[in-house]
Amino acid sequence: MQFTLEKTDNQTSARAGEIITDHGKIPTPVFMPVGTVGSVKGIHVKDLEEEVKAHIILGNTYHLYLRPGLDVLKQAGGLHRFNGWNRPILTDSGGFQVFSLSDKRKLSHEGAEFRSHLDGSKHMFTPENVVDIQRVIGADIIMAFDECPPGDSDFKYAFQSMELTHKWLKRGIERFDSTDPVYDYSQTFFPIVQGGSFPELRRKSAEYIASFNREGNAIGGLAVGEPEEVMYEMVEVVNDILPEDKPRYLMGVGNPVNILEAISRGVDMFDCVMPTRNGRNGMLFTSRGIINIKNEKWKADFSPIDPDGHCSFDTLYSKSYLRHLFVSREMLGPQIASIHNLSFYLWLVTEARRQIQNDTFAAWKDGMVKQLARRL
Amino acid sequence: MQFTLEKTDNQTSARAGEIITDHGKIPTPVFMPVGTVGSVKGIHVKDLEEEVKAHIILGNTYHLYLRPGLDVLKQAGGLHRFNGWNRPILTDSGGFQVFSLSDKRKLSHEGAEFRSHLDGSKHMFTPENVVDIQRVIGADIIMAFDECPPGDSDFKYAFQSMELTHKWLKRGIERFDSTDPVYDYSQTFFPIVQGGSFPELRRKSAEYIASFNREGNAIGGLAVGEPEEVMYEMVEVVNDILPEDKPRYLMGVGNPVNILEAISRGVDMFDCVMPTRNGRNGMLFTSRGIINIKNEKWKADFSPIDPDGHCSFDTLYSKSYLRHLFVSREMLGPQIASIHNLSFYLWLVTEARRQIQNDTFAAWKDGMVKQLARRL
Ligand SMILES: [Zn+2]
Ligand SMILES: [Zn+2]
Repeated sequence: MQFTLEKTDNQTSARAGEIITDHGKIPTPVFMPVGTVGSVKGIHVKDLEEEVKAHIILGNTYHLYLRPGLDVLKQAGGLHRFNGWNRPILTDSGGFQVFSLSDKRKLSHEGAEFRSHLDGSKHMFTPENVVDIQRVIGADIIMAFDECPPGDSDFKYAFQSMELTHKWLKRGIERFDSTDPVYDYSQTFFPIVQGGSFPELRRKSAEYIASFNREGNAIGGLAVGEPEEVMYEMVEVVNDILPEDKPRYLMGVGNPVNILEAISRGVDMFDCVMPTRNGRNGMLFTSRGIINIKNEKWKADFSPIDPDGHCSFDTLYSKSYLRHLFVSREMLGPQIASIHNLSFYLWLVTEARRQIQNDTFAAWKDGMVKQLARRL
Repeated sequence: MQFTLEKTDNQTSARAGEIITDHGKIPTPVFMPVGTVGSVKGIHVKDLEEEVKAHIILGNTYHLYLRPGLDVLKQAGGLHRFNGWNRPILTDSGGFQVFSLSDKRKLSHEGAEFRSHLDGSKHMFTPENVVDIQRVIGADIIMAFDECPPGDSDFKYAFQSMELTHKWLKRGIERFDSTDPVYDYSQTFFPIVQGGSFPELRRKSAEYIASFNREGNAIGGLAVGEPEEVMYEMVEVVNDILPEDKPRYLMGVGNPVNILEAISRGVDMFDCVMPTRNGRNGMLFTSRGIINIKNEKWKADFSPIDPDGHCSFDTLYSKSYLRHLFVSREMLGPQIASIHNLSFYLWLVTEARRQIQNDTFAAWKDGMVKQLARRL
């Protein structure tokens, strides 16, 4: 993997760059749609390419490990071959799901023992085997195994959790650096900054993570219940320390305003289930604000779904039709809304990139932030 | 509407023809995907065009009348404008749903009073107002209001029901012929043959329907529980009488074998929920037989979904991946299976047409019928 920092904004810390992987180029800032078990829910691969214009998607190691499982993925030749997506894939390490989804997890210095939420079977994730698992999945970007403490954790818990994550990181890096890719393309490994809502811990963690000088770095453990201002502060603290010449990935964030605010603080990569999850529920993000398409007010509104939109559905269909699909519980409603929201997110980061390159990002961002949160 | 009978098979009664409507041409035999409330479940319009290659879709008057309702459809400029489908649309008359879905229906010579299955509201369908409703929906082909008796009805019930349907037909035709289209394209009206499982009633009904000399004719009340051989016999009896120079539409039929058998008996048009409904349940129709994709046996089968298939997914994805989507309850599984099944149905009728034109239909059909029902 290679990263080129093309431009840093003159008024903010926003950056425009480009990541090159063996599966293609990724302009940054970038948003990565979440493909939990190997499919971005409700979206055909060709629509991800042509409508959403996604450059990279994310897969969840916990889910893929349990189903279809490593045997199937290995026989398939990796996730790209399995799901037909030929552009880059990043996988998380499974830590977040082990702590949020699985039953009876047992944490030790060795790793995390857990029971599958599907069938109760017993499994163990360690810093080493999550590297092996992600190698078999075939991710272009592999994430370190971390513990992600709740947003309201106290200092002591956040400190101990960070220390554990740091120890795990060292073991993960050793495993990664001593093993080869399973398939015929290269893979890279990103460590994750933790430290809860405590600037001194975040600083310490960022310094530790930076010391490994990996090809990219991630910020984890945010957007887990802490106030937004705290999240922004943590991002600032961390990005002051993380190397400038490496991409920075803010995990699991967020709504369109969060994304612009984080870009302005120097973040390059994002993922979030919000565009698809909220889309399935009838919530549309647009550059003019948020639409609840199930609302009665759209019943006879024959204006386009989003006149400024960037997928072909935005002008093909009216709000009235999309509302009708949701009210009638037709699958096509969630499908269209998911594609719309993802194409909006991809447009947002692409436009941010353009504004950064033109030195017009700061004013554009301020204007957008006012509009994006409006309820239409 | 115009119909040209291009060719009649030399060994069977199979026919190849072409229907011309103001929304485009329909080669026959043809299969019409069912778009119940204005969307073919789980399928984007562009995929209906490009993957399924559908020429015409069907809308359900009962569902569309209740939701989104005529006000919305009229303001939208008709169903084509509402749902973005610019090729022909046929609507049923709502009779079948009134008798199968609605609550507390009350049948009289005047029509059918019923309560909505959605909110219990009271409505009345008459032979006249279902014409008016279908004019507002904007169907290219409007169906007569009929009563469809159960497949095991006795002679007396089937006779009375047929008599009622015939009286309603006269009123429907009078209404249709004395009214104009609501939009800027022409509409046509098909009467429906009834008569249960009784050849003498079917003959009588076919003669009565033929006497109106409409632009097309339909056969209703079949595939409602009677044995397949009875269905085929009724089709033969009726098609001996219906005019040769008009298309014949067998309503609600059926599986791929049913369709080939009916084509060989002179039917030109079909609709059925089977390809989409069974597809959503993981049942795939292929030219080699039927696949239950949820079966464990496909878990590590990396061969294409359907090596002979005609949609782009058939070779993009493996059986293993599609099974994984179903097992993981990902929306994309039903989406892919629905498109596959519809594209298979469209291929089947298109290939039948080619074989008819080459005078090779009979042998081809016999070979296909043996394969289509196999369980793979
Ligand atoms: Zn859109
Ligand atoms: Zn197919």
